[in-house]
Amino acid sequence: MSARVPVTPIDAAEITAYDHETDVLVIGYGCAGASAALEADAAGADVVLLERQSGGGGSSALSGGEMYLGGGTPIQEACGFTDTAEEMEKFLLAALGPDADQEKVGLYSRESVAHYQWLVDHGVPFKPSLWDSPTWVPPTDDGLMWMGENAYPFYEIAEPAPRGHRVTSDGFGGKVLMAVLSEAVTKTEIGVHTDTTALRLIMEDGRVVGVVARHFNETVTYRARRGVVITTGGFADNKEMLAQHAPQLVGLGVNSDGGDDGRGIVMAQAVGAAVKHMSAGQVGISLVPGMMVRGMIVNSVGQRFINEDVYPGLVGQAALFKHNLKVWVILDEQAYEEVPVDERWGVQPHFVAETLEELEREIDMPEGALQNTVGEYNRFAEHGEDPYFHKSARWLRPLQSPFAAIDVQRGMAPPEYGDGGTGGGGAEVFTIGGLRTTVDGRVLDLDDDAIPGLFAAGRATSGLHSWGYISGTSLGDGTFFGRRAGVAASRE
Amino acid sequence: MSARVPVTPIDAAEITAYDHETDVLVIGYGCAGASAALEADAAGADVVLLERQSGGGGSSALSGGEMYLGGGTPIQEACGFTDTAEEMEKFLLAALGPDADQEKVGLYSRESVAHYQWLVDHGVPFKPSLWDSPTWVPPTDDGLMWMGENAYPFYEIAEPAPRGHRVTSDGFGGKVLMAVLSEAVTKTEIGVHTDTTALRLIMEDGRVVGVVARHFNETVTYRARRGVVITTGGFADNKEMLAQHAPQLVGLGVNSDGGDDGRGIVMAQAVGAAVKHMSAGQVGISLVPGMMVRGMIVNSVGQRFINEDVYPGLVGQAALFKHNLKVWVILDEQAYEEVPVDERWGVQPHFVAETLEELEREIDMPEGALQNTVGEYNRFAEHGEDPYFHKSARWLRPLQSPFAAIDVQRGMAPPEYGDGGTGGGGAEVFTIGGLRTTVDGRVLDLDDDAIPGLFAAGRATSGLHSWGYISGTSLGDGTFFGRRAGVAASRE
Repeated sequence: MSARVPVTPIDAAEITAYDHETDVLVIGYGCAGASAALEADAAGADVVLLERQSGGGGSSALSGGEMYLGGGTPIQEACGFTDTAEEMEKFLLAALGPDADQEKVGLYSRESVAHYQWLVDHGVPFKPSLWDSPTWVPPTDDGLMWMGENAYPFYEIAEPAPRGHRVTSDGFGGKVLMAVLSEAVTKTEIGVHTDTTALRLIMEDGRVVGVVARHFNETVTYRARRGVVITTGGFADNKEMLAQHAPQLVGLGVNSDGGDDGRGIVMAQAVGAAVKHMSAGQVGISLVPGMMVRGMIVNSVGQRFINEDVYPGLVGQAALFKHNLKVWVILDEQAYEEVPVDERWGVQPHFVAETLEELEREIDMPEGALQNTVGEYNRFAEHGEDPYFHKSARWLRPLQSPFAAIDVQRGMAPPEYGDGGTGGGGAEVFTIGGLRTTVDGRVLDLDDDAIPGLFAAGRATSGLHSWGYISGTSLGDGTFFGRRAGVAASRE
Repeated sequence: MSARVPVTPIDAAEITAYDHETDVLVIGYGCAGASAALEADAAGADVVLLERQSGGGGSSALSGGEMYLGGGTPIQEACGFTDTAEEMEKFLLAALGPDADQEKVGLYSRESVAHYQWLVDHGVPFKPSLWDSPTWVPPTDDGLMWMGENAYPFYEIAEPAPRGHRVTSDGFGGKVLMAVLSEAVTKTEIGVHTDTTALRLIMEDGRVVGVVARHFNETVTYRARRGVVITTGGFADNKEMLAQHAPQLVGLGVNSDGGDDGRGIVMAQAVGAAVKHMSAGQVGISLVPGMMVRGMIVNSVGQRFINEDVYPGLVGQAALFKHNLKVWVILDEQAYEEVPVDERWGVQPHFVAETLEELEREIDMPEGALQNTVGEYNRFAEHGEDPYFHKSARWLRPLQSPFAAIDVQRGMAPPEYGDGGTGGGGAEVFTIGGLRTTVDGRVLDLDDDAIPGLFAAGRATSGLHSWGYISGTSLGDGTFFGRRAGVAASRE
């Protein structure tokens, strides 16, 4: 951070007069910030919301718009699924592990139906219809989707039910979510200060009492009588922080609004905050899950490594962390044709060949590599079996000539995917680790004590997750724990 | 850390009188601490060395005793190898990456021959003879070993030369190294205070000026006029810290003296220190490299995943981080017989079978999995080729009945391996990440500024490494940067 504005906190004694005063100051206007502000306002606090960009939305507005919700929501019930908080909790602990946050996952699961209702009460639309195939985001406006609950090994761990609640939208739903929450904010007395970047915390006797910020070229000071809530997002846009904490994410495309520079995390660390799981990341890889599930995904020497019907985010993590993104989708003509046109996102194979031998040569694999893998796959697929990775029989069928290959590293994400579709290096990532917080959003120090006056939520924190990631858990825990942080801050 | 002694620093104003005063206070008597103390003493400073155990040695004394040294040491030359600092640097940046510390690696490589001489001048013995086969530690007293410099892909990246300098010893050499360094310490005026655990740093006007420690049931205070050097080791013994920063290491065996609780790291963080690469770990897996290299290592579905002639530490990291340790060594009778008896460490296969089909059934692999992998391997091995993973022709030969399998997860390390040979879960780990330091051992804060009076070296710091690990780089950078930290502290 050298040669930049230091993050070390300012002593309140150095501030002669504050430019602004409020009860609760929320930094960052994504889904966590909006939720915190709305709940602090509802609890009777004066609230100011700072946003570095010229308008609200943050990275949340660029997201797919899935919310991981369950335990028997009206959407699940309308689609004919029963679910319980216990099964949801079991799934999340397995999918977000190892060592996901048990307390957060438990509370989040138990209060999921109530949280769904809060979202709906604020105007968030969900449609009671199921998209029944692995995908990043349904190409339709379907409101419910599987997040791999029905794939191996998860169906053995928890009773499967689809829990991906997708905000109703043409294309990505994050912008709809943020439009709705922003609309709710405008109906309150919450002050929204855009183009305002928080730089340092202000401390008084070990308590966070405000923030020094920059508004264009001007330094502005804020006093927060009750609390500061950091909802500034992760650090995927900060190459130096990535290299220090998550080196495998360096150099890839980033799924963000460009402002995920980790400043909020570091500002809090500078007043003693602890962090965790800083190496973890979500990895969105450039492929069409509908093609992958009907064919296979292999590494650079033609080996399969996962059941292709699992949630594609888990495939992405395996592809990056275990195979350095050198992965290929192998499929046949029938598989390609079976994918509905609007689900193809315009993607076409990079290589086509009549024989696997020819395809091996084209994509520079050892002679025999694909022939062996596809041979083994086909031998069992004929009987609807996959003893290697346990893909569901629904997606198993011997692959036949002509064959095709998609090079995931080329990056072929459609424009809706975050940074405009370049999918730098074949993947777009964001960070999952961050500040250690209680379920009420209190930021903990290295002794596990809450730092007075400091709260946080969203991707600036380590939320439900440890290493694993399922989409819907960022908007999900951002709004859920954002709300709780807003309430807690308003009561200080 | 709740319900324990807090790590938050003490204000010097609260200390009425110090129990001890010195110029340089070194915390932790492993190789980094001994080196720091010796150099600070040599520079004319008064030095006190604190050690929580009842004697020096630390985890260093339990290590194999390899030092990664090169650039043309007398040992390399005596064995007929030429080497340069540039080639050493290229290898280390590749093997310790992604994003290894370029400044540290560069300096370490350029000064490696001089560092070798310092070690020898202090009495550390190295023997000019080469052990010419992949191993954790030579079963002989040979003093030079390959660390995978001659294996793919490293021989393509840097001119190969063996750089593993193994302290002469029967068995593990770490105890010899520490005996020699301790002997050197006793010849100085360095005060060694054992059974003394540092708990909190003492701060005066933003400067570290001392330490509060515990000696049995007594609280003792130390004033350090010039500097405090933290050489307390990593955090592999602290389950909570592992879960927060390196969840994949939780539950495995630990390679330490039991005192690697991360306290030194957290004490420094509590005065503002930054950390990096906290998720990284060395992974020693329970296998005999000489067996693996003559056979193969496969995952739970029979897939090879690495060239078996690479340094076994890199195999260990791949086995844990990419295959969750569910890995097997597959070999045939000839391979087993070829391993010299004293290199076998008493290890015998868990399963033996006349056919691969039978072996698959015994070890619960999909029918055909091993038959395919061994078939492909043999087909190319016949011509001395391995197009999949590029193992050297020297180790390639078609495997033939009868076959055998070793279950790495069972943990079969010989007693010399760290914790007494249980090899909990088939692996013994330690952490690589830690405090961010300059090449002079100054501890950096979140703004990249040095914290006055605070130094660190060894596994309490992030050293040469990012994610990768080659043995010899812990004793290597511990002693090298320990020395530099001692010098810098003595000059404050």
